[in-house]
Amino acid sequence: MTDKGRIDHDLPVGIESMGERVEFDSMGEVRVPADRYWGAQTARSLEHFAIGDDRMPIELCRAYGYLKKASAIVNARQGLLPQEKCEAIAMACDELVAGELDDHFPLRVWQTGSGTQTNMNVNEVIANRAIQLLGGELGSQTPVAPNDDVNKSQSSNDTFPTAMHLAMIGALDAQLLPELEELAEVIERKACQWKDVTKIGRTHLQDAVPLSVGQEWSAWAEALRVAACDLSHAREALLEIALGGTAVGTGLNAPDGFAEDVAAEIARLTRLPIRTAPNKFHAQATLDATVRLSAALRGVSVALIKIANDVRWLASGPRCGIGELKLPQNEPGSSIMPGKVNPTQSEALLMVAMQVIGHDTANAMAGSWGNLQLNAMRPVIAANVLHSIRILADGCASFRTHAIDGTELDKERIASLREQSLMLVTALVPEIGYIDAAHIAEAADANGTTLREEAIASGKVSAEDYDRIVRPVTMIGHGVAGA
Amino acid sequence: MTDKGRIDHDLPVGIESMGERVEFDSMGEVRVPADRYWGAQTARSLEHFAIGDDRMPIELCRAYGYLKKASAIVNARQGLLPQEKCEAIAMACDELVAGELDDHFPLRVWQTGSGTQTNMNVNEVIANRAIQLLGGELGSQTPVAPNDDVNKSQSSNDTFPTAMHLAMIGALDAQLLPELEELAEVIERKACQWKDVTKIGRTHLQDAVPLSVGQEWSAWAEALRVAACDLSHAREALLEIALGGTAVGTGLNAPDGFAEDVAAEIARLTRLPIRTAPNKFHAQATLDATVRLSAALRGVSVALIKIANDVRWLASGPRCGIGELKLPQNEPGSSIMPGKVNPTQSEALLMVAMQVIGHDTANAMAGSWGNLQLNAMRPVIAANVLHSIRILADGCASFRTHAIDGTELDKERIASLREQSLMLVTALVPEIGYIDAAHIAEAADANGTTLREEAIASGKVSAEDYDRIVRPVTMIGHGVAGA
Amino acid sequence: MTDKGRIDHDLPVGIESMGERVEFDSMGEVRVPADRYWGAQTARSLEHFAIGDDRMPIELCRAYGYLKKASAIVNARQGLLPQEKCEAIAMACDELVAGELDDHFPLRVWQTGSGTQTNMNVNEVIANRAIQLLGGELGSQTPVAPNDDVNKSQSSNDTFPTAMHLAMIGALDAQLLPELEELAEVIERKACQWKDVTKIGRTHLQDAVPLSVGQEWSAWAEALRVAACDLSHAREALLEIALGGTAVGTGLNAPDGFAEDVAAEIARLTRLPIRTAPNKFHAQATLDATVRLSAALRGVSVALIKIANDVRWLASGPRCGIGELKLPQNEPGSSIMPGKVNPTQSEALLMVAMQVIGHDTANAMAGSWGNLQLNAMRPVIAANVLHSIRILADGCASFRTHAIDGTELDKERIASLREQSLMLVTALVPEIGYIDAAHIAEAADANGTTLREEAIASGKVSAEDYDRIVRPVTMIGHGVAGA
Amino acid sequence: MTDKGRIDHDLPVGIESMGERVEFDSMGEVRVPADRYWGAQTARSLEHFAIGDDRMPIELCRAYGYLKKASAIVNARQGLLPQEKCEAIAMACDELVAGELDDHFPLRVWQTGSGTQTNMNVNEVIANRAIQLLGGELGSQTPVAPNDDVNKSQSSNDTFPTAMHLAMIGALDAQLLPELEELAEVIERKACQWKDVTKIGRTHLQDAVPLSVGQEWSAWAEALRVAACDLSHAREALLEIALGGTAVGTGLNAPDGFAEDVAAEIARLTRLPIRTAPNKFHAQATLDATVRLSAALRGVSVALIKIANDVRWLASGPRCGIGELKLPQNEPGSSIMPGKVNPTQSEALLMVAMQVIGHDTANAMAGSWGNLQLNAMRPVIAANVLHSIRILADGCASFRTHAIDGTELDKERIASLREQSLMLVTALVPEIGYIDAAHIAEAADANGTTLREEAIASGKVSAEDYDRIVRPVTMIGHGVAGA
Repeated sequence: MTDKGRIDHDLPVGIESMGERVEFDSMGEVRVPADRYWGAQTARSLEHFAIGDDRMPIELCRAYGYLKKASAIVNARQGLLPQEKCEAIAMACDELVAGELDDHFPLRVWQTGSGTQTNMNVNEVIANRAIQLLGGELGSQTPVAPNDDVNKSQSSNDTFPTAMHLAMIGALDAQLLPELEELAEVIERKACQWKDVTKIGRTHLQDAVPLSVGQEWSAWAEALRVAACDLSHAREALLEIALGGTAVGTGLNAPDGFAEDVAAEIARLTRLPIRTAPNKFHAQATLDATVRLSAALRGVSVALIKIANDVRWLASGPRCGIGELKLPQNEPGSSIMPGKVNPTQSEALLMVAMQVIGHDTANAMAGSWGNLQLNAMRPVIAANVLHSIRILADGCASFRTHAIDGTELDKERIASLREQSLMLVTALVPEIGYIDAAHIAEAADANGTTLREEAIASGKVSAEDYDRIVRPVTMIGHGVAGA
Repeated sequence: MTDKGRIDHDLPVGIESMGERVEFDSMGEVRVPADRYWGAQTARSLEHFAIGDDRMPIELCRAYGYLKKASAIVNARQGLLPQEKCEAIAMACDELVAGELDDHFPLRVWQTGSGTQTNMNVNEVIANRAIQLLGGELGSQTPVAPNDDVNKSQSSNDTFPTAMHLAMIGALDAQLLPELEELAEVIERKACQWKDVTKIGRTHLQDAVPLSVGQEWSAWAEALRVAACDLSHAREALLEIALGGTAVGTGLNAPDGFAEDVAAEIARLTRLPIRTAPNKFHAQATLDATVRLSAALRGVSVALIKIANDVRWLASGPRCGIGELKLPQNEPGSSIMPGKVNPTQSEALLMVAMQVIGHDTANAMAGSWGNLQLNAMRPVIAANVLHSIRILADGCASFRTHAIDGTELDKERIASLREQSLMLVTALVPEIGYIDAAHIAEAADANGTTLREEAIASGKVSAEDYDRIVRPVTMIGHGVAGA
Repeated sequence: MTDKGRIDHDLPVGIESMGERVEFDSMGEVRVPADRYWGAQTARSLEHFAIGDDRMPIELCRAYGYLKKASAIVNARQGLLPQEKCEAIAMACDELVAGELDDHFPLRVWQTGSGTQTNMNVNEVIANRAIQLLGGELGSQTPVAPNDDVNKSQSSNDTFPTAMHLAMIGALDAQLLPELEELAEVIERKACQWKDVTKIGRTHLQDAVPLSVGQEWSAWAEALRVAACDLSHAREALLEIALGGTAVGTGLNAPDGFAEDVAAEIARLTRLPIRTAPNKFHAQATLDATVRLSAALRGVSVALIKIANDVRWLASGPRCGIGELKLPQNEPGSSIMPGKVNPTQSEALLMVAMQVIGHDTANAMAGSWGNLQLNAMRPVIAANVLHSIRILADGCASFRTHAIDGTELDKERIASLREQSLMLVTALVPEIGYIDAAHIAEAADANGTTLREEAIASGKVSAEDYDRIVRPVTMIGHGVAGA
Repeated sequence: MTDKGRIDHDLPVGIESMGERVEFDSMGEVRVPADRYWGAQTARSLEHFAIGDDRMPIELCRAYGYLKKASAIVNARQGLLPQEKCEAIAMACDELVAGELDDHFPLRVWQTGSGTQTNMNVNEVIANRAIQLLGGELGSQTPVAPNDDVNKSQSSNDTFPTAMHLAMIGALDAQLLPELEELAEVIERKACQWKDVTKIGRTHLQDAVPLSVGQEWSAWAEALRVAACDLSHAREALLEIALGGTAVGTGLNAPDGFAEDVAAEIARLTRLPIRTAPNKFHAQATLDATVRLSAALRGVSVALIKIANDVRWLASGPRCGIGELKLPQNEPGSSIMPGKVNPTQSEALLMVAMQVIGHDTANAMAGSWGNLQLNAMRPVIAANVLHSIRILADGCASFRTHAIDGTELDKERIASLREQSLMLVTALVPEIGYIDAAHIAEAADANGTTLREEAIASGKVSAEDYDRIVRPVTMIGHGVAGA
C-alpha cells in the first residue's frame, strides 16, 4: 500500500486485475481491459481502426519516453507541473524506454495520419502508470491526466515527428550503420586477401580486360561506404526536432523557450546532439527529413542489389556458369534436385532491397501529401523507415555471416577463364592500333585459336613483343583500388 | 497407442514433448524443438535467415494444404504412393487448410527466392504429422518422408507459385472483392438518396457549374466497380497453376498427365475452376500473373485515394473549409485542440493505399528479376500481395462503417455555396456567347455582386430570360449518373 | 479568290504571311506569328508555360480532329451549327487528322492540367483554317469562332480525355500490338526450330535439370502473348469516351443525346467500336482507364526485361561466360577493347523498359491526384503513355531485327555444358530416393568426377540402370511447351 | 586552302558537301551524309537503334568537349600525341563546348548501355573536324583517328560517366540551383511582407489554431532551402570522375598518373574542383552518385508538390473554396465556363514534379542493374537526370514569375475565416483544462454560436478572461518563423 502522492519506487510494472475498467475522455466513457494501462482514446482507436495486423513500431513508442520525460522536466522547471507528477511521469517514461511497457501499445499503423492516437496511447499509459505509482485510481486521470499533464506544452503534431526522428536515429545507430560497416570490412578484408589474383574482367557481361579479384571486391566495399556515408548525412537532419511547435508550429500553449529547453533535455537524456528545428512550420508541415532518409535507405539497397547480384552470378554453376566463387552450402537447395546449392543469401538480400525500394515509393508519396500546417501521412513513413532499417541490417548481417564470410575462390577456374580471354588484345592497341588489334581478336574468335597465335600470324607483332606486352598481371595496375 | 500403419483419426494436433528432437536431411542431423512438427530444413532456414519479423503469410502455407493433398491423391491413384500414406498426408493437409497447424510455420519471407524452405517446412510438417497419425516416430521420415513422399512428383518451383495463386484467390474472394462491393453499394445508396441535392461543381479546385451530390458520389461508386472488375480480370489468370512442371517446367519425375490430374483434383477440393498452365516454362520463370494482380491492387488504391481525398476535402472545416459533408465523430481529433474532429478514416485509407502502391513497386521489380528457368523473387511478392489485399479490405470496411455510413450533408451550406457561384454564367453561353458571358462573370467577381445583377446590367439578357436559363436544378441533367 | 461563305476546297494548307497578326480572346488582344493558325490562347500558353522542350504529343492533337469533326456534324444535325461552318470545320479536321496541320501545335506538355490550352489550340487552329477556307479574315473569329463554334457542346474536360483515348488506341493498333506480335512470332519460330536441342536448365542461376532450347524460348513467346493480351484488355476500356459530359459530367450546354450521337459519329469516322462512357462524372474525374493501360505497358516491360536479360546472359562470353547464344555483331562494341561484341540491343531494350516503368510511376501518381469533378493531371499521363507505346514498339522492332532474328546457337557449347551437369542426378530420385541421390551429386562435385562414375561407385544403381534413366533427351518431356 | 599539318584557325564549322561520304571502322566501310562530321560507328548506331525520337542530351555531348580536350593535353604532355594533333583536337573541343557542333550528334538515348556509341560519335566528330582543320581528308582517319588519337588513354567506360557528371554539374549550376534560390527568395519576401497577417491554421484540412500568413509561407521557403541544400550535397559527389580507369577501372593503356593529371586539367578548364574518383572500379561499375542526385531531385519535387498544392487550395474558390489567396489571371481557364480562373501554374508544376519522380524510379532501377565491372544502363539515367533538372528549373521559374510574384491576399476573407474558428478555444486549455474546453467548442459547433458566447455561458471563464486569453494575434508567437 502506497502513501498517496508519493511514488512507490518498488511497484512493479503491471496491473493485477481482470475484466474491464472504465476510462473516459472528452467524448465520454469507454471500457478497457483491466490489466492494461491504456485509456479511452486508445480503446476508441482499437475499435475504429481494425485494419491489418501492422502495429505502430514499438521503437517509436519507446522513443516517446525520452520526449515525454524531457517535457515533464521542463514543464516542472517552469512551474507548470508539480514535482511529484513530474517524477512519476519520468519514472513511467524510463520504464517505457526500457521496453517494460511494450505490451500496452496495441494500435495499428493505419490510424490518424498525425499519429494522435499513438500520442494519446503514450499519454494514457504514462498517466495511468504514474497514477499507479502515486497510489491513485487507474482511469481517474488523477493526479495525472493524459492531456493536461503528460501532454502539457505539446501536441501530437510536434511530438510524433520528434518521436519518429529519435526512433530512426536509434535504429540507424544500433542496427544499420554498424552492420553496413561490418559488411564493408569483411568485403575489404577479402579484397586485400585476393588483391593479387588476376581474373578476367567483364563489361556488358562480355569478356573484357583483366583486373584482380581484390579490385572487383573493392568496388563493393566502396559502394557500401558511400551509401553509409550518405545515410549518415541524412541522419544529421533528424537531429533537428519539431517539439515546441505544438499544434501548428507557433508553440501555442508552450512556455517561452520550451522548444530549446526540451531539445537540450532530450540531448542530455539520449546523449545525442539533438537541437530544435529552426522552422517548426516546416518541421510539422512536411516529412522532408524522413523522405530524405528513405532515399538514403534506397541508396543502400541499390548498392546491395549490385553486390548480391554480382556474387550470385560469379558463383553461378557449379559447372555450367561462371563459377569463380564458391559460396558456403548452408542448406539443401532444392526439394527435387538433390545436391543443389543455391545463392539463397543473395536472393534474400535482393528481396529485402526490393522491399525497401517499394517502401521508399510509398514514403515519397506520403511525403508529398502534406497539406497546409500538417503532413498527416506520418505513421506509414514511420513504420516503413523503421522496417527498412531493420530488414536491411538483418539482411546485411545474414549475408555477411552466411555468405561472404565463407566465400572462397575457385582459383583454377579463375585462371583458366583469364587465359582464354580475347580481350587481352587491348594491351596491343598502343603498339599496333585499334583496328589491327580488332582483326586479331576477330580471327581468334572465328578460328577458335589463341590470341597469341593470331597476333603472331598477323605479322603485326613479334612473339617476343607479344609475351612482353600481353601479361594479365601487368594489366591490372598497382593495387587493390589504386589502379 | 495406435496400431502402426493405421491412421489414428482421433489423435489431436500437437506434440506432447519438451526439449528437442533430432531431425535429419541430406546434409545431416539438426535439433528442433520437440513440440513442433517441422524438421531439419526448417531449422536450417531459421538459423540462416534471421531477417526481420516478417513471417511467410500463413494463408500461403494453408493453401499448400490443397496442393499437397491433391498431389498425394494423384500419386496414389498412379500407384506411386501407398494408400495409407496418402490418407495420412491428406488428413494432415486438411488440418493445415483448417488452420490447425498454423504454429508450425516459423519461417521468414526473406529466405530462398524460390520458397523452397517454406515448401520443405510444409513437407516436413505434413510428414511428421502423418507419421504421428500412423504411429511412427517423429523425425524418422518413416513411413512418410518429406521429399520422397510429401513432395513426390513436385518441386518448390511448381508448388510455390501454385500455392501463391491459391492463397491470393482465396484472399480476394474472402476479403477484398466483397469489401469493394459493399463499399460501392453504400456509396451508391447515398448517391441515390442525394440525387436531387444540387451543389456547386469544382474543377481545378475552382468553382464550376453545378451537379447533384448524387452525381458526385456516383463517380466514386463507378471507380470502385471498375477497379473491382479489373481485379476480377487479374484473378482469372491465377486460376492457371504451374503444378506439374516440377523443377524447370519439363515435369521431370512427375508421371504423365500429372499436371492435368492434379489441377482437376485441386479444382474439386477448392471448388474453383483451377486449370493447368498452358506453358509451365513461363509459369515458373516469371511472376507475370501476380505482377498483373499487383497492378490491379494498385488500381484499387488509385480509386480509393481519389475517394478518400475528395471526402476529406468536402468535409473540411467545420467553418473555414468547404464544409459540405459532415463525417461521424469517432474520437477526439487532437491532443491539444479540444473539440477537433478530423477525417481520420480518410487518412488511414490514404496511407493504406500508398502502402499498396509501394508494395506494387517492389512487386514489379521482383517480377522483372526472373532469370532463365526460374523467377527466384517469389516470397516478397507473395507477402506483399497478400498484405495488400488484407489492408485494402480492412481499410475499405473501416472507411465504410466508420466514415461513409454515417456521413451526412450540410444542406444549408451546400445551397449557400451553390447560389454564390459565378459559373452558373455558363448556361448563358448558348444564348449570348462565350466572350460576353465571361465579361459578366468577371464583373460580378470584381464588384462582389451577383451574376444576375451583372447579367441584367450588361444589357445582354433580360431578367426574365436570366431566371429562365440560369437554374441550377436544370443544369444537372437527368439523374444520378445518366446526365 | 474565294466566294465568301463558300469553302474553297483547293486552298492549300498554310498562311502566306510574315510578321504578326492580332488575335483576341475574352481577356483581350494578343499578337501571334502571322504564318500560324493558332490564336490568342495558344499564344498566352506559349508565354506562360515555357517549361522544357516537351511538346504535347502530336498524335493527341491529330486525334482531336476526329472528335471535333464528329461534334460539328452532330451539332449541325441538331441545327446548332450552320452547314457551311460544319463543312469548313470538317475539312480542317480532316487536314488535322492527316497531319497537314502538325506545325501549328507548339504547346508544351507542362500546361494546365485539364489540357484546356491544347483544346483551345485545336479550336483556334481549326477556326482559323475554317475561316480561311470560307474566305474570312484570320483572327476575326468570323464566321467560325473557336469557343462558340468549334468547341460547341464541348468542354476541355470531356474532349481532352476523349482525344487521349483515341490517340492511345491509335498508337496501340498502329505501333505496339503488331510489334509485340511480330516479336512473339519470331521467338516462337526459333523455339520450334530448336525444340530438340537439349540444354542444361538453370534455376537460381545454378545448374538444374535439362530442358530444350525450344522450351526455354517458348516461355518468352508466352510472356509476350500474355502481356499483349492484357494490353488488349486495357485497350477495351479506352473505347468508352467522356465526350458529352462537357464541364463537369452533366452535359450542360450540349443537346440531349449528344453523347451517344457523337460517339456513334466517331465510331463511324474511326471504324472503331467507340461508345459513350456510362458515367461521365467518373470518366472526367479520374484517369482510371489510362492508369490501367499504363500498368499493362509496365507488364510488357516486365516481360521484355526478362527476355532481354536472359538473352544477354545466355550470350555472355564469348569465352568466359555462358556462351550458348551467338548474337549478331552489329557494331564494334568498345572504344578501347578491339573486337568486342556486346549485347547492345538487350541493353537498349532494358533501358526502354525501365523508362516505361518510370513513366508508369508518374502515371499512377497523376491518376491518384484527381480532385472532385476533374482529374487535372492529364497531359503528363497522355505524354507518358504515348511515349511509352512508341519506344516499346520501336524497341521491340529493333530487338527483333537486330538481335533475335540473327541469333544462333553454339550447339557444341550447349552440348558440352549439358553433359557436365550434376543435376541429371534428379532422374535417379524416383529410383533411389532424394538423399542417396544428393550424396552422389555431392561426391561428384567434391571429386570433380562425373555423376555416372559416382552413381555406380555408390552401389545404389547399376551402370545399365544409370544409362537407361539418366538421359537428358528423355528428361525434357514431350515438346516445345507441352512438357 | 590550308597548309597540311597546320591548323587553319579561321576555318568555319561546317562541311560544304552534298551527298554521301565513305567512312570506315574495324568492321568496314559505311556511307554517311557528306555534310556531317560523324563517322562509321555513328552511322551504324543510327541504323541499329531507330528507337523513338529521344536524342542523347546535347549537354552531355558538349561536356565531352572538356574531357576530350583535357585528355589530349595530358596525352601530348606525356609525348603520346603530337602537338599539332593535340591543338586541332583542342580547337574542335572548344567548338563542341560552345555548341557549334550540336548538329552532329544524332544518336538516340536508347543505344548501348555504356554510351559507347555516343563516345564514338564524339570521337568521330572531333577527329573529322580536326582533320578538316589540319587540311586532311574527311573519313581518312588521318592525321587524326577517332580511336587511336581522340580516344587515346580512354574508354567509353570512364569517359561516359565523366561526361555525365560534368553535364549534370553544369545543368545544376546554370539552371536549377539558381532557380530554386530565386523561388525561395520570392516566397520569403512574401513571408516577410505578410508576417503580421493572422489567419486560421489548418491541420488534417480542419480548422486549427491561428498562425500568420508569413509563418505559413516560411515553411515553403524552408522546404526549398532544405531541398536545395541536399541537392548541393549530392552535387559534391559528381566532382569525382571516373576518367583514367579506362575499360574496367585498372587504367590499362593510360599512362601513369593520367587520372590525376586529366582531372586537374578538367578542373582548370571548367573552373570546378574536379578530382579523380578514389576507386575507379566503383565509379565505373555503379551509378551510385547519379542515383543519389536523382533522389535529391525527387526531394525537390516533393517540396514543390507541397507548395504548389497548398497554393492551389488556398486560392480555391473564388466563392466556394478557401479563397485566401488571389492568383494572377494569366489566361481564360475554361473552354466552356466563361470567366473561370484556374491554378494552372500549380498544375503544370505538379505534373513536372510527378514526371521527375517517375524518372527517379527509372533511375533507381537503372542504378541497381550494374553487372560486374560496368553499369551498362547509363544513357537512360543521363537523359532522365538532365531532363529533370531542366523541367524543374523551368517549372520553378514559370511558377515564380506567373503565379507567386503576382499572388495577393484576400485579407477580408482571411480575417473573416479566422474569426469564425472554434479552435481558438485551445488557448483556454492551460486555464480550464482540455475536457472543459472541448465541451465549449462542441457546444458552439452544435449551436452555431460563437466560442465567446459558449465560453461565458459555461461559467468556466469570465468575459474579461476570455478576451484577454483568446486573441489570435498573441497566439501566433513572435515572428515569421521563430515562433
